[in-house]
Amino acid sequence: MKKIKFLKNLKFDSSGLIPCVVQDAKDRTVLMVAYMNQDSLQRTLQEKKACYWSRSRQKFWLKGEESGNFQIVKELAIDCDGDCILIFVEQIGGAACHTGMRSCFYRKVSAKGNLTIHGKKIFDPKKVYKK
Amino acid sequence: MKKIKFLKNLKFDSSGLIPCVVQDAKDRTVLMVAYMNQDSLQRTLQEKKACYWSRSRQKFWLKGEESGNFQIVKELAIDCDGDCILIFVEQIGGAACHTGMRSCFYRKVSAKGNLTIHGKKIFDPKKVYKK
Repeated sequence: MKKIKFLKNLKFDSSGLIPCVVQDAKDRTVLMVAYMNQDSLQRTLQEKKACYWSRSRQKFWLKGEESGNFQIVKELAIDCDGDCILIFVEQIGGAACHTGMRSCFYRKVSAKGNLTIHGKKIFDPKKVYKK
Repeated sequence: MKKIKFLKNLKFDSSGLIPCVVQDAKDRTVLMVAYMNQDSLQRTLQEKKACYWSRSRQKFWLKGEESGNFQIVKELAIDCDGDCILIFVEQIGGAACHTGMRSCFYRKVSAKGNLTIHGKKIFDPKKVYKK
């Protein structure tokens, strides 16, 4: 894919970003939410690996570039008003979160309003992230 | 729940908002993404019905207030860095999108880069939204 034909249907925010929900293509777990700019979206579509724009580091963030845990993009959808993207991925290594948890959404709110941890650590971050 | 104990774990943006991914509690379809501020989050937790902050109208948006298609909140999770919320809901009426589609993400990008429509209209917006 050389051009993003549907770009005119997308609304990027004042920083040139659009949020992207990342869902496991098989079991439909919501793994994480990250942000893309036009270039990282283009790269994602061309390489079929999820590439975001890191707001904290202000640079491209090819997910898995350090850990090897790439996200292979199977499908991409956009919402009705064009201000959000949803991608369906195969999560290499089985975990998306930098903590080693499968999903970044591993903390749930209990009936009493406390946070409880759900799920297991898939990998040890100390071993996966060398620095 | 009178107080949001986990509020200190959340990061609201410069407009006081946090994105919220809405997932069907049963079949795990991602239905939509909307934004909450502290008050709409509090209201969501108290009433167990999803309440957002409408950025376009700059007011509370109790989802379903006009259509009757409320979102009954079954669970709420937050992500690792506390800048995104995920809620699991029962979508009354079966559709979340104002177009009548089940999910707002009903447009998928084809291999050629075109948008294709997926899913069926669950309701007729003209009948559901009177004005």
